[in-house]
Order: sequence, then structure tokens, then C-alpha cells
Amino acid sequence: MFVILGGNGYVGKVFQRSLSAAGQDFTVISRKLNDYSTPDALLDCLRETSASFVINAAGYTGRPNVDACEIHKAECLAGNAVLPGIVREVCEHLRLPWGHVSSGCIYTGSKPDGTGFTEEDAPNFSFRQNNCSFYSGCKALGEEVLSGAEQCFVWRLRIPFDEHDSPRNYISKMIRYDRLLNATNSLSQLTEFANASIACWMNRVDFGIYNLTNPGCVTTREVVDMIARHVLSDKQFSFFRSEQEFMQQAASTPRSNCVLDVSKARAAGLSLSPVHEAVERALKNWNPR
Amino acid sequence: MFVILGGNGYVGKVFQRSLSAAGQDFTVISRKLNDYSTPDALLDCLRETSASFVINAAGYTGRPNVDACEIHKAECLAGNAVLPGIVREVCEHLRLPWGHVSSGCIYTGSKPDGTGFTEEDAPNFSFRQNNCSFYSGCKALGEEVLSGAEQCFVWRLRIPFDEHDSPRNYISKMIRYDRLLNATNSLSQLTEFANASIACWMNRVDFGIYNLTNPGCVTTREVVDMIARHVLSDKQFSFFRSEQEFMQQAASTPRSNCVLDVSKARAAGLSLSPVHEAVERALKNWNPR
Repeated sequence: MFVILGGNGYVGKVFQRSLSAAGQDFTVISRKLNDYSTPDALLDCLRETSASFVINAAGYTGRPNVDACEIHKAECLAGNAVLPGIVREVCEHLRLPWGHVSSGCIYTGSKPDGTGFTEEDAPNFSFRQNNCSFYSGCKALGEEVLSGAEQCFVWRLRIPFDEHDSPRNYISKMIRYDRLLNATNSLSQLTEFANASIACWMNRVDFGIYNLTNPGCVTTREVVDMIARHVLSDKQFSFFRSEQEFMQQAASTPRSNCVLDVSKARAAGLSLSPVHEAVERALKNWNPR
Repeated sequence: MFVILGGNGYVGKVFQRSLSAAGQDFTVISRKLNDYSTPDALLDCLRETSASFVINAAGYTGRPNVDACEIHKAECLAGNAVLPGIVREVCEHLRLPWGHVSSGCIYTGSKPDGTGFTEEDAPNFSFRQNNCSFYSGCKALGEEVLSGAEQCFVWRLRIPFDEHDSPRNYISKMIRYDRLLNATNSLSQLTEFANASIACWMNRVDFGIYNLTNPGCVTTREVVDMIARHVLSDKQFSFFRSEQEFMQQAASTPRSNCVLDVSKARAAGLSLSPVHEAVERALKNWNPR
């Protein structure tokens, strides 16, 4: 029995779909119905289920975007840095294996040679480095809190998207934003991300951190060209001239734009499709709201 | 009616004594008896009292010392960074004035000219700077979370001591530790700290941050000499040769050693006694366990 914490969130729902598709039983624990804000409360929640694997898909991401985390700092810390520690404590107590949905946003840029960051590279977009956003800082602290955790997967999601129009979907954001910042990024197709996460446990992959992004990287301009080619939008996309202009006019906190290396995941048999293919497929099967 | 969150802790108990001495009514909210881990829970707690001022003396400091915070990271974040945000949210909702016990440990060293850090100086021993301890990082985030808080005092305590022997008392630590690291620090005599904190509200001082340390600074060697002069210990104190040796042999995380400037507190009429006098008095009135 899988238990999904935050199972009714944007990522949690995709885990629900993937587990259903795989014929796996699961229980959803959601903040609206369950209190899991303390170890004791979470212990009670989990004892009522017959959990054999816990997925922590709960987190605080800010609405409408990550700028909200600069205001709701305590919630951001509680959801992204403290909660992973609570889940760890309770899962270790119950000797339950589990996985945590982390984020690739704890990096910025790519390595000097242009390749992506591996799981061995220390986050470079965190409170400890590079004037990060409060969200990235909290996610990086969340990984620190999990250092040395037993029977624990850390799955790094990075700019989620799929074919379903949603305010949280990267493609929907590209279509709706007035102006865009050109940047180079690794992305995660959500269903593939959830499937790979579940495969970690089903295939008894070694516990640890995995960058679960689609191999390769894309620029914002490439994605916009693909959107135009699929005629999902007839607007003329306009771009900020620089990150500086973007920061001055549209954002209150810097964004992580980064490339991740997926060789560890690939070597573990967790293969997502190449990023350009994955974006093409989402656009081809686009499902407007 | 004062309400003391964490009122049975090392600092909370001193607030109890100071309020009693001042003939003020107070209620203690303690983690053992009350749940205040979420805004709703704290709201319920406070509604049961007729609070007119809330003191947040709760926090996670690590036992036997700050090294424990490197292990219990989630608790440290929850107690020192998230909790202040919860108290802020609830106090702003109830329009209650309040004060938060922060720490001077968010600084390291002193200014280039040897003077102490003022309330205007950004913390330089935090996750954002200078490879801080996890505890200092969390306390600095706690202050970030309180930025712009309404009707809120932030009282910076720094290496508490008084005449009562206790594992948390700086003087007791000096007496008991096998070897010491020589460093220069500002300190806070606890009763004077609590009295000054309470005076902030009683005297309707402007809300904001206050460095509540005894004016001046002392070196570890000076304190040790004073201890020897008062014959509180007959041992030969021994010192680490360097911070490096201390880090290699005795500590798992760097300590904040710093000097704070108290002119803002002094200008507001919050005068603690000069630090050498305060230490002398504690030693003269020493109360062994």
C-alpha cells in the first residue's frame, strides 16, 4: 500500500494517476483532511493506513508563483524544510521506506563545461550560496534535513509540465505570461517523473538522490517556437531583454534556471524521454481547460 | 496579562521570575502541556487566556549544546524559524503586541574598527553568509520571517548567564568544559535581559529589534580569571590553541563569537549593567546546584 502525503496537490494527483495505471493500491493523506504537522500527528495518520511505502508530495510552492514564498516564509519553511524532517522521523520510527519530492531549483546555471549538475554537486542556489529565492533556500534545507536518512529516495523534480493545461504547468505559464525570460533549463514531464519515482521502489533501486528530469535541456525560445508551431497560441511572444529587466519589472525573487545531469537515474534504469520529444508530445496532445 | 510561550524553558523561567517581581500577571504556555505547533492551535491557546502581550521564549537550542542542532535540523528549523512566523501570524490576527527572544549568534566577530554590530547590520553568521552553524542559520531565518511584523519586539539574547548554576549557564559551562576556546563576546545577564524585554512593553518603547546584551565584551580568559579569583573552581583551565583545533577536537559546527552594539537599547532607556560588573556579581552570588 502506497501512501501519498499531499496526494491532492498538483504533483500528488499525478502520483495517484500513475499508481492507478500501475494497478497499485494507495491512500491519500491531504492537508485539508489530515493533520500531519507534527511527528505524533503523522504517526497517527500513517498507523491508520497499512502503508508499505510513503510518498511525500506535499510542499509549499507559492501561488500564483514562487514570489509568494518571499511573503509566506514560515509556511515555506514548514512545508519544504521541516515537513521532510517530520516524515523522515516517522518513517524511520516505523521502518518504512519512502520518497521525497525535492526540486532541481536548488541549482543555478550549468557546470563550466556546459554539462548539468549531478547528485554529487552541492546545491549552488540555496541560502548558503548565490542569493537564492526563499523557496529554493527552503528546498535545499529540506535536502540537508534528509542527509543520511534511512531507506529514503529524494526525487528532484524540475519545472513540471504535461499535456493538461493548468496554472502550475510550465507550458500553460509560457502561453499565459505577458513577457518571458529566455533561459536554459532541464524540465520534468510529470507522468514520467511520477512513473520513475514509483519505479525506484518497485525495482528496488538504491536509495538516494535522483535527478528526475527529461534528458537534455531547452531554452524558453525553443519551447515558445514549439508552442507556435502547434498553434496553441497565436500571440507574438515577447521577451525581457535581460534577467535584470525581468527582475525589475516582473519578479521579486531570482529564478533558478539550471541544467541537471541524469546519468545516475539512467544508470538505475529510470529513463525519461528526451526533453524535446516530451515537450512535443505534450503539445501534440494538448488538453485545454 | 502576559503570556509566555515556552515559559518553562531556561529563558522562559527567568521571564516568570521577572514578571512576578514586577507584580505582573502572566500565564505560561509550554510545549509539554499545550500544542502551539500550528496557527490554529496557538490561536486556541491564546484565546483561552486574556493575553495583552505575548512573549515568545520558545526555541530549540540543542542539548547538551548547539552541536545537537546539526542533527535535529527539522526541530531546529521548526522551533527557531517557523514558530516565530506562527506567533506573528496569530498575534497580528488578534492584534496583540508581542516580543520574540532572538539571538545575537547571527553575527560573528566585530566590525573592522572593533565596535559591535548594530541592529541595522545584516546578520553575517547565517545560512546566507559565513558557513554558520545550523542553529545560527535558523535564528537568522527567524528574524527574516519577522521582517515587517506589526507590534513586535525582537530581543537579541547573547550567551545567557546568571548566578544560578545550570547546564545552560555560560559560567557553568566555563567551569565544566575540559578545554576552552578563547574568544571575545558580548553576553546577556538573564534577569537583566528579561527585565529590559519587559520594560520594552511597559515603557512603550518603539517596536523593533534590540540588542539586549550587557554593554562591552569579555574574553573567555577574562571570565576564567574571574572564576578563579572567586575560587569557584580550582582546576587549571586549559585552552585550545586555535579555533581550528577546537573545531577538530570538540565541536561539529562553528560557534558565533561576536560583539554587539547596544546604543539603540541604551537610547531607549534599556540599560543593562556593564558586562564585567555583571559577571562579577554573578560570581559573587554564585548559587551551586
